[in-house]
Amino acid sequence: MAASDLSIASPAELESALKATAKAVESALDSLLPRPAGLHGRAQEAMRYAVFAGGKRLRPFLVVQTAALQGADAGGAMRVACAIECLHTYSLVHDDLPAMDDDDLRRGQPTAHRKFDEATAILAGDGLLTLAFELLADPATHASGAVRAELVARLARAAGSDGMIGGQMIDIEAPNRQLGPDQVIELQQKKTGALFEFSCAAGGVLADASGPELDRLRAYAQDFGLAFQISDDLIDVLSTAETAGKGVGKDAAAGKATLVSLWGVERARAEAERLAQRASAAISGASEAARLLRALPYYLIDRRS
Amino acid sequence: MAASDLSIASPAELESALKATAKAVESALDSLLPRPAGLHGRAQEAMRYAVFAGGKRLRPFLVVQTAALQGADAGGAMRVACAIECLHTYSLVHDDLPAMDDDDLRRGQPTAHRKFDEATAILAGDGLLTLAFELLADPATHASGAVRAELVARLARAAGSDGMIGGQMIDIEAPNRQLGPDQVIELQQKKTGALFEFSCAAGGVLADASGPELDRLRAYAQDFGLAFQISDDLIDVLSTAETAGKGVGKDAAAGKATLVSLWGVERARAEAERLAQRASAAISGASEAARLLRALPYYLIDRRS
Repeated sequence: MAASDLSIASPAELESALKATAKAVESALDSLLPRPAGLHGRAQEAMRYAVFAGGKRLRPFLVVQTAALQGADAGGAMRVACAIECLHTYSLVHDDLPAMDDDDLRRGQPTAHRKFDEATAILAGDGLLTLAFELLADPATHASGAVRAELVARLARAAGSDGMIGGQMIDIEAPNRQLGPDQVIELQQKKTGALFEFSCAAGGVLADASGPELDRLRAYAQDFGLAFQISDDLIDVLSTAETAGKGVGKDAAAGKATLVSLWGVERARAEAERLAQRASAAISGASEAARLLRALPYYLIDRRS
Repeated sequence: MAASDLSIASPAELESALKATAKAVESALDSLLPRPAGLHGRAQEAMRYAVFAGGKRLRPFLVVQTAALQGADAGGAMRVACAIECLHTYSLVHDDLPAMDDDDLRRGQPTAHRKFDEATAILAGDGLLTLAFELLADPATHASGAVRAELVARLARAAGSDGMIGGQMIDIEAPNRQLGPDQVIELQQKKTGALFEFSCAAGGVLADASGPELDRLRAYAQDFGLAFQISDDLIDVLSTAETAGKGVGKDAAAGKATLVSLWGVERARAEAERLAQRASAAISGASEAARLLRALPYYLIDRRS
């Protein structure tokens, strides 16, 4: 990778853009999430707790930057960014539940069911999932009802039982199966890849982009998503509990195959690098957004591996 | 009530219409629910198990009949009817979970988490909730994107943390509180009333009904919903476990106030009758749909009380 290349943002530029977008997204989420009130406020408190527990706000960044790349309205993109973050947070809250991954900590803080209780965490997750669709469908997101409905349909497919939910289902059953590389890739594509694809396509949908433009965004998202997942697996294997803020080597302990366990560290690292290059090359143009989107895959796989 | 009145359907006519709609809805659901396949099929199996466990299909009936009353396309109404049934079923699957109401049986059959497992039930519920929005947003539901987006926004509000989820939150905390009649009515309005309101309004939205027409449908739904809930509470108190197919007197055992416990059986019965009359009177016209909608509230409160 060429950090001095003017066609690609430097790590420092990208970090600064990630931070600025995260801040803007958190401010928008603060306005858009319901304020806990009345007899039923507890679930809404838990929704806020989970959403404001931190995170890179990576999916919102992808929405905001692909929307800028395609020339879509920034206000609408911010609402879609908030919707995808609500949906992503719901998936974390439910995945952490005792019946699922049974995690006590998320980013070093008690998970929602530890901070509140299991029933409240289930309801908070349900509430965030529902809110994601409410945000997309609202006229404030886009003047065209057809665009709003398309965003809803795309997010529902990405997050549904053939998408993210399907991926979590495979993941839960993984310890009882001998998954090969193709099956692990399918798992990852569904569990995390589908939402990355939505996030990138959303920018194009908001701008009424052409089919080939949407295809390019999808190609970027697919390579980016898999590279990101491999790099997460590498962190899982290589880092320590202290720096990652959650249990590590957990997949291995749970008997779950990953591309790192199947391929070994060296090949996995090389594949992540290759995918990052290909993702980066899918983005054309000289805009600020293009420079940031080209830098992002490299930045993420260089996190710790 | 006047069973011989030509302006209102007889109980036999209504029963026959309920059965015919239920059959049509179940056939449509069979086409619209994903067919379990591949590594992730287990969650989809559980979705089908929960949806096809029976039920009156009352919310779909309300959509179909209000759509007919307003002259909306029947094909689109059937898709909305399926969406609301998916959403209703998700709420039952999650409410039955050990962390929530901890029910082993639903309509005499094992609940989803008993038949499958807790993780699969959580995912199946999430999948049904997500599918509901996917069905509404699809162009097959209505030619106008604005109408599809409005249906999504309305359902999200009705089902969200200020609607159904909020109602379930209040219900879970009810044993620790002394709820008065107004608070119990608020609980019911959120927990069950909001979805009845959506179901009735949806028929109007599909037909591009005027504001006053939507207000009339909402008034019908509000009175109908509360009458239905009171009659459910009466069944809970008066019937036996055998005939209701689930644990009864359960609210009382759990220390939850109901309008029946607060008002007594006689007053509750009189209120249900008054609400049914008012709901019935809100429906005008001489169509088949109007006759059925006028008969429905009486029919439901006469079930066992």
